[in-house]
Amino acid sequence: MHIHSTTSETPVQLERSELHPALGDSLMEAMSFLNEVMDRHPRAISFAPGAPFAGFFEQFDVPACLARYSRYLAEDKGMSQDQIRKRLYQYGPSKGIINDLLAQSLRIDEGIQVPPEAVVVTAGCQEALLLAIRALCSSPRDRLAVINPCFVGIAGAARVLDIDVVAIEESASGIDWFGLVNACRSARAQGKRIRALYVAPDFSNPSGNLLDLASRRRLLALAEAEDFLLLEDNAYAFTAGAAAALPSLKALDRNGRVIYLGTCAKTCLPGVRIGYAVADQLVTGGRQGVRLLADELAALKSMVTVNTAPICQAIVGGMLLEHGGSLAALSAGKAALYRNNLALLLEALDNHVGPLNGTGMVSWNTPQGGFFVRMRLPVEADAALLEYCAAEYGVLWTPMSSFHLNGGGRNELRLSCSYLTPDAIDEGIRRFAYFLRDPRVRDGQRQPVAAEKAEA
Amino acid sequence: MHIHSTTSETPVQLERSELHPALGDSLMEAMSFLNEVMDRHPRAISFAPGAPFAGFFEQFDVPACLARYSRYLAEDKGMSQDQIRKRLYQYGPSKGIINDLLAQSLRIDEGIQVPPEAVVVTAGCQEALLLAIRALCSSPRDRLAVINPCFVGIAGAARVLDIDVVAIEESASGIDWFGLVNACRSARAQGKRIRALYVAPDFSNPSGNLLDLASRRRLLALAEAEDFLLLEDNAYAFTAGAAAALPSLKALDRNGRVIYLGTCAKTCLPGVRIGYAVADQLVTGGRQGVRLLADELAALKSMVTVNTAPICQAIVGGMLLEHGGSLAALSAGKAALYRNNLALLLEALDNHVGPLNGTGMVSWNTPQGGFFVRMRLPVEADAALLEYCAAEYGVLWTPMSSFHLNGGGRNELRLSCSYLTPDAIDEGIRRFAYFLRDPRVRDGQRQPVAAEKAEA
Repeated sequence: MHIHSTTSETPVQLERSELHPALGDSLMEAMSFLNEVMDRHPRAISFAPGAPFAGFFEQFDVPACLARYSRYLAEDKGMSQDQIRKRLYQYGPSKGIINDLLAQSLRIDEGIQVPPEAVVVTAGCQEALLLAIRALCSSPRDRLAVINPCFVGIAGAARVLDIDVVAIEESASGIDWFGLVNACRSARAQGKRIRALYVAPDFSNPSGNLLDLASRRRLLALAEAEDFLLLEDNAYAFTAGAAAALPSLKALDRNGRVIYLGTCAKTCLPGVRIGYAVADQLVTGGRQGVRLLADELAALKSMVTVNTAPICQAIVGGMLLEHGGSLAALSAGKAALYRNNLALLLEALDNHVGPLNGTGMVSWNTPQGGFFVRMRLPVEADAALLEYCAAEYGVLWTPMSSFHLNGGGRNELRLSCSYLTPDAIDEGIRRFAYFLRDPRVRDGQRQPVAAEKAEA
Repeated sequence: MHIHSTTSETPVQLERSELHPALGDSLMEAMSFLNEVMDRHPRAISFAPGAPFAGFFEQFDVPACLARYSRYLAEDKGMSQDQIRKRLYQYGPSKGIINDLLAQSLRIDEGIQVPPEAVVVTAGCQEALLLAIRALCSSPRDRLAVINPCFVGIAGAARVLDIDVVAIEESASGIDWFGLVNACRSARAQGKRIRALYVAPDFSNPSGNLLDLASRRRLLALAEAEDFLLLEDNAYAFTAGAAAALPSLKALDRNGRVIYLGTCAKTCLPGVRIGYAVADQLVTGGRQGVRLLADELAALKSMVTVNTAPICQAIVGGMLLEHGGSLAALSAGKAALYRNNLALLLEALDNHVGPLNGTGMVSWNTPQGGFFVRMRLPVEADAALLEYCAAEYGVLWTPMSSFHLNGGGRNELRLSCSYLTPDAIDEGIRRFAYFLRDPRVRDGQRQPVAAEKAEA
């Protein structure tokens, strides 16, 4: 990067080693390198980003959404134009302004019965994650467990807050149950505790894994037995479609073990940055009396971002109202497109890469929903190989090692289907199949790749 | 609060003592109590909130702002309609999308020369504060100094991040210089360090204090001599008006000692939640090579809120473009209104409370800008007295003790002029003058107030 001249004459230089350790972290470096690779190859077909399909943006109409929400405030809430303007344009409550509509959608779409007061609207789901782990992890004694590999956002938030993370491995049945119980007991033996487990039961990022109903019940029972909370990230559940969807952990929860974390980025629009946490647990003790955990999250939020932009909340509110209050109805068309894209991606893999499958050379999973397919190569799927694939074959993907906390996944990559048109998916996988037959990949020649890495 | 029924049959109860200690903090309790008092007295004339005057909202036009920014992207940046939609509606860079416009406004309005790359757009100034102290305070060794009394947002962010705070007292000349130097040296003697000082040199919240030019230069020299950074909160500087404004610390900074923290809440609109940090310091060491501190703040932001809602950034961008790129031009009308309100507030105090001034009974300061006047009473200005004032006289204010870190300010209150019409200011102070003549205040009768508190 070119650094322009500034006002400084003899500028102070800060040592990276004296900044917060999260900043020297390999995770942060990996993400920043990935962005650079994408910037360098803007014309490559990219299976890398998990961002929503941009074609949906054409139908989107900010003024119409704001007008719809304003009409609701006037007609259903009896608010004057002055009051409506204040609601949209002034500071607002830390907990949010569309909590009633989100609680309604949870009831309609998922059978989750919570009062609006148990919902906190956040600046994207990322802030909801951060607030939840900040509230729960009160001292170095408290550890956060995550299913490994895992979403970078949760690992990153934990590092920003200096919270210790324990990795529980994914398994064929979803979770390494023995590893999880063991982590709880071994923490206890050290005078520590697993305070919460972060889990995305529906087509997780990055693996596309789905927890079946029995696993969901088993996880809830284990949370009760070992006394930890579940942070349920629900980002990709909507892609299953209403008919095929399994009940969320929160819908099955009878003991208040689940904090549900939602995002409107995929169902509504990324550009509004609206997420939410559902935290109906009771908090007791202290001078404040009995409150909901949502109140505590809102108190923390007041010190992180104060409140979530009410204009953005109003846009989401308008979209919800336009679809009978249902996020599922609102996102049904999107879910259908993503299911179709995923089927096309898996079909293209069968068509173009099929002959290589099962030879032990490459293999991949076949999720029934979500944005992601996981693939194993005979060589290390690292930044150097990505750079080579982008330059020589015009295709981008994400190395899985970025999502692994214990140095695993080195031979794995993630393919995302969300961002591309059907034509681009087929053409991209056609190119990708040539890449997989390249001697660097096919023969597992590590030497040239390693050399390339040293130069990068 | 009434807690509705939930899905829980035997719900887990969380102990407040096992949540993060920031949540048991007296600061959080005080803010939450204050909100409750205001909710209970919606018809009282409120000198409590520092929120902007709602009359400005009438002129505000979201679609026009978005259209103006979109035209800029099309005409000046040559972007297609597809590219513009992606810019506004898709995920975007953690650093922001209107960095060029904010850098331009800093140049036009304040003579601050920084490249757009040194600006990070944040979810309100609160997030900018949080990111700055998180980046700088790398271990328990690092302490944050603040001018006491201070903005609750900075104290709160430090508590959320478990950062130790050192209070430096305000003085007649602005800052207790001896106390500041002493804090640096005493930290060093303990193997610790003052890493940064948070300061609002222009009409600070809550005191309305202004640092004169000599004090600004002295502070910069001291930061260099004692090797700490300055976090300059600029929220109220615009109220001075272009002619009377003193140069910001950042404009005077020749050694890269200042991280400048800006907010668009007061100059543009609270409802967009747009703030920004200017961090042009160079960071060296590690594997990433030389980068700007702004890059590190953006990396942290990716783990806190990912990116700031681009729709909200576009609204601010459109407002800036409509005013020649100048925040000062954009906010000139607002600044004039606030100056007028402050003059009216001080005049009303003279008219209605004047006879009490100088008797040793009450006293107040006379700031030349900002939103706030500080007043000292002969009795404790606590929550119980506030409740009494609201119930009996229909007037609200803010106890200053909430802003004091060392138990000080117990007899002080803050009056804000930003939220009210001229008529309400005069009527409110007229009522307030009666309150000041109430025996509870005039005679400093502590007993009944304490009894009231026990009941509250």
